[in-house]
Amino acid sequence: MVNILSEGSSVVNQFIAELRDAEIQKDSLRFRLNLERLGEIFAYEISKTLEYEEKEVATQLGSALVPVLKDYPVLVSVMRAGLPFHSGFLKVFDRSESGFISAYRRPHKDFSLTLQAGYSSIPVLDGHVLILSDTLVATGSSMLMAYRELQGHGKPRHVHVATILTSQEGLDKIRRHLPGDNITYWVGVIDEELTAQSFIVPGLGDAGDLAYGRIG
Amino acid sequence: MVNILSEGSSVVNQFIAELRDAEIQKDSLRFRLNLERLGEIFAYEISKTLEYEEKEVATQLGSALVPVLKDYPVLVSVMRAGLPFHSGFLKVFDRSESGFISAYRRPHKDFSLTLQAGYSSIPVLDGHVLILSDTLVATGSSMLMAYRELQGHGKPRHVHVATILTSQEGLDKIRRHLPGDNITYWVGVIDEELTAQSFIVPGLGDAGDLAYGRIG
Amino acid sequence: MVNILSEGSSVVNQFIAELRDAEIQKDSLRFRLNLERLGEIFAYEISKTLEYEEKEVATQLGSALVPVLKDYPVLVSVMRAGLPFHSGFLKVFDRSESGFISAYRRPHKDFSLTLQAGYSSIPVLDGHVLILSDTLVATGSSMLMAYRELQGHGKPRHVHVATILTSQEGLDKIRRHLPGDNITYWVGVIDEELTAQSFIVPGLGDAGDLAYGRIG
Amino acid sequence: MVNILSEGSSVVNQFIAELRDAEIQKDSLRFRLNLERLGEIFAYEISKTLEYEEKEVATQLGSALVPVLKDYPVLVSVMRAGLPFHSGFLKVFDRSESGFISAYRRPHKDFSLTLQAGYSSIPVLDGHVLILSDTLVATGSSMLMAYRELQGHGKPRHVHVATILTSQEGLDKIRRHLPGDNITYWVGVIDEELTAQSFIVPGLGDAGDLAYGRIG
Repeated sequence: MVNILSEGSSVVNQFIAELRDAEIQKDSLRFRLNLERLGEIFAYEISKTLEYEEKEVATQLGSALVPVLKDYPVLVSVMRAGLPFHSGFLKVFDRSESGFISAYRRPHKDFSLTLQAGYSSIPVLDGHVLILSDTLVATGSSMLMAYRELQGHGKPRHVHVATILTSQEGLDKIRRHLPGDNITYWVGVIDEELTAQSFIVPGLGDAGDLAYGRIG
Repeated sequence: MVNILSEGSSVVNQFIAELRDAEIQKDSLRFRLNLERLGEIFAYEISKTLEYEEKEVATQLGSALVPVLKDYPVLVSVMRAGLPFHSGFLKVFDRSESGFISAYRRPHKDFSLTLQAGYSSIPVLDGHVLILSDTLVATGSSMLMAYRELQGHGKPRHVHVATILTSQEGLDKIRRHLPGDNITYWVGVIDEELTAQSFIVPGLGDAGDLAYGRIG
Repeated sequence: MVNILSEGSSVVNQFIAELRDAEIQKDSLRFRLNLERLGEIFAYEISKTLEYEEKEVATQLGSALVPVLKDYPVLVSVMRAGLPFHSGFLKVFDRSESGFISAYRRPHKDFSLTLQAGYSSIPVLDGHVLILSDTLVATGSSMLMAYRELQGHGKPRHVHVATILTSQEGLDKIRRHLPGDNITYWVGVIDEELTAQSFIVPGLGDAGDLAYGRIG
Repeated sequence: MVNILSEGSSVVNQFIAELRDAEIQKDSLRFRLNLERLGEIFAYEISKTLEYEEKEVATQLGSALVPVLKDYPVLVSVMRAGLPFHSGFLKVFDRSESGFISAYRRPHKDFSLTLQAGYSSIPVLDGHVLILSDTLVATGSSMLMAYRELQGHGKPRHVHVATILTSQEGLDKIRRHLPGDNITYWVGVIDEELTAQSFIVPGLGDAGDLAYGRIG
């Protein structure tokens, strides 16, 4: 199941418009903030699918039976562009455990790019709800690599894959390769075109560079 | 129309549970943060009702037609308990104008309370969408007073009245006194009981004191 | 004693430069953020003058004797321009109690301005360190009015008066009228000129309008 | 040169006390916040050593000659414990470029630990001021590995090495191995003991686990 958050009109569209805008992108603080605000909104929408249990809480004047999260989802994020998006998730799910997986496209002199795997720190996933997030899905290779990195850390109860902007091709690819059940997709917006150089068009550019500067 | 955000299961319930909990309330930073996080969620839900218009945005690699907010709502908040809730709205609607209205219950030696009006700074409302927010609605008197203070600043296109916790009695009262059309209500949760001293039960206590300390 | 934070070179100057810049001011989010960041820096500098006491803390692996704040200062802020500056103080002194005093210049048709007092909510000050802050001090009248409002709430152990930008005339005036001892002044930067209309030149404009929009 | 921020009494000590406290650590949100607040304070103190240049700024009412940062430092952080500390630096130096280096101690069945290098994304350093930060320095091996990873990205004009808590042994080790000039050290507090298992005592535990949960 794919939920496309830009389809219902909401401030999600405003934030994505600012992320795309080459002029507004010059303010990297606002760029990171928009990723973070979207992370909060994705987290809130995903929270509607989570399980809650009744708990008795002692207020100053009495006692209330209130629903609380049965358990917090585990938040795994793909480096480095995923960090501000992850911050948003963590603002909402502040008691969650977090994991980080590195994946980046290393440019070569012939202008080809290879996917570079690296560091990963992943909490126990067994029996937990997992939210696997990355800012962009272009070809889908990073997300697939990230998913593979999770193997060996236990079987999650359910997986939510979240991304702000994806190409149609990238989304199709990850859906083809990941298990068909037990995964829910959360997408900000889908762009049609993916260039031979793996850039999404119209897209928004390289989210990692825009948030943190070009790698030297 | 009254929207009750705790009815659909979501992290809203978790935040309200923490706000109610007399033990967790001792951490005033977390108390304020929960008000702010709820402000962000209310803002996002209200944003689904706002108007958007298509705008052409120049991305690094092309051009995209994207929906953006037609105009930002004006955010008016009731002092002082409403401040952290307002901060949440302003995090989402960062280009909005803000107004502040003071209203507080002053305690007397015979334990009676009177509503104290005071400072207000209110932007032009004419033709704008207005979000009037306060953390709690107990008797409803503060919210009604705040609404009256808005007169003379222009006629809003639409009004959203937002509160995290209300007594049934308080909500009924403001709905009785405010115009029947053109107002949408957004409520976190409704508590049944309102004591003779105007405390909501089980409620959460005095939100102003919990966020900022007791008045001396 | 007057401490002028822009005198030692630091990022304080960068933030004040952005606050002054009519172009950067168009982004009210950044304007508020700069006030808040300065509030944090002022709070940190003032924290160097506070009293600490040794406390034994149980760590995971042993026990440490560490200095902690003997008590948290009370933070009183002048509405409405003072709110984002106050947020910065509260981020650092998160266990502090907060007070709010309203004071604003109401414009008349003949372009004269009168100082309007209003709402105030002030915690017990007796025996506490008080930080009284406002974003700007133009004529000094608001700050003096705020100080008078504090009377009747107890005698603070020490008072810190903090402002980001002041006219020389305004600073001189408040120093003339406030008690000579027991008060420390913390100033971002001092501008020489104050116009007949009470505007600081070169100044930065109306901080309340820039943060929250023009009053309607 | 080594600057020890806990030596002058300030709120730095309060934050470090909270970081150490095994009871307060249960709130991972507050733990991360304390790292971030310390990052902001370190950034501010380091900003006092940076270069500024006069710039003419057009205010609403005139023009001001103000000092602004000549250039922003590059912020390189060690994963994953360094992330919340890095967020604090980035809040202050919001126009900086950021780099990330992974380094973590991988536990073995015989309780030995090996340092694991991995992902790194590093901006151009040539001619820039570099701030290399990590939350803790235990043995010093991670920091030395991080420093080595920087080679090949250009020669920084000056390097600031920043850490909240270090063992005396770890600090001595990195000072012995890094170049003697052109590096300034910024330390929150120095603990005397380092166990055979490379734990700082009394220390604060594993900052990565406390911020993000145990690796599974």
